Amino acid sequence: MSDSSPGVADLLGVLAYAELTAFLRLAEDAARLAPTLTDRAALGDLAAAEYAHFRLLRDRLASLGADPEEAMAPFTGPLDAWHEQTAPGDWLEALVKAYVGTGIALDFYREAAAHVDEETRRLVEEVLADEGRSQFAVERVTVAIKEDPKLSGRLALWARRMVGEALSQGQHVAAVRPELAALLVSAEEEDIARMFAKLTEAHGRRMEALGLTPGP
Amino acid sequence: MSDSSPGVADLLGVLAYAELTAFLRLAEDAARLAPTLTDRAALGDLAAAEYAHFRLLRDRLASLGADPEEAMAPFTGPLDAWHEQTAPGDWLEALVKAYVGTGIALDFYREAAAHVDEETRRLVEEVLADEGRSQFAVERVTVAIKEDPKLSGRLALWARRMVGEALSQGQHVAAVRPELAALLVSAEEEDIARMFAKLTEAHGRRMEALGLTPGP
Repeated sequence: MSDSSPGVADLLGVLAYAELTAFLRLAEDAARLAPTLTDRAALGDLAAAEYAHFRLLRDRLASLGADPEEAMAPFTGPLDAWHEQTAPGDWLEALVKAYVGTGIALDFYREAAAHVDEETRRLVEEVLADEGRSQFAVERVTVAIKEDPKLSGRLALWARRMVGEALSQGQHVAAVRPELAALLVSAEEEDIARMFAKLTEAHGRRMEALGLTPGP
Repeated sequence: MSDSSPGVADLLGVLAYAELTAFLRLAEDAARLAPTLTDRAALGDLAAAEYAHFRLLRDRLASLGADPEEAMAPFTGPLDAWHEQTAPGDWLEALVKAYVGTGIALDFYREAAAHVDEETRRLVEEVLADEGRSQFAVERVTVAIKEDPKLSGRLALWARRMVGEALSQGQHVAAVRPELAALLVSAEEEDIARMFAKLTEAHGRRMEALGLTPGP
């Protein structure tokens, strides 16, 4: 890791494993839960895009002289734990997870973009260009809630649980990888809280887009 | 399906669903069975390539005026059944399945290439260009057998079961979709037998490449 700041391998490593595992989990959800072949292909499409992101990140790690496997290793525990705690039970939960999960990841890329070298920033921008891909999930969930408004409460709780687990795993990672935390914020305690607040706010906007009313 | 022969939608449909489901199953095997992140990424790479093939096939169906979902529907039963009967129990079985399964699929593309229109043939060639992708599986399996020669018998049986199930599902499909069978062979009874013989022969070559000795 020649001229890059010390947290860059961590940053690329956590994003790489997040993409690899998102790819595999979305594919699994598509195979297991999609009610039609069109739905299966739509979630598959999102999964394949995550894989393309993984490759960009892996190649960037390699070109920086880092071992991708080593760079990902510290983050497999928290990310696997998140996926296990948020395994969707049905197709609508899978859609909400796809939208919320990729949304949180993109927020994270956006935060990261400000703190990395030019080359890595181009990669981040390439990933962010895929932002519209999970829009089909919003459309499907909105239609389902219109047909059965009772779904709204259950899915809102589901989404809140997901973001709660994400913040808790995120704090965990920040504690054990201070270089990564330092890269994402400007080293001041308040900034971590502010970043989490921003992520929570962005999550709120996604909940509105899904038509999920904030619970009590 | 304007100027194409009547079986082309069937052909593209069966290949499309085969690719979609291969993508999802390989991703699942990668998530579930890969012993290292590098292995997981390698199988993920193969899975993502299957997804790219699926998109080519789906787009070709759409450009022919066919509904991809309708074209795939007759084949979901046999292909899902094949995957259920051949769910790998460990990483080596997953590798053998990836190599044998994509090999059978490519044989099928090769047979098909002779019988389709120019545009569809170009698509088939694009898919066939990916032939080398499962080579990593051969390398991994060969190394494992060198380390523990006892594995050879078990994996050879496993491969034989897979090809047996594939032939049985294939005959099933040929019986219910005579247009598809007619497209692949020149309508004569012997030709179906000959095609199956060719596929079995190609399978034998793959077994040799894996270092799996033919059983008694």
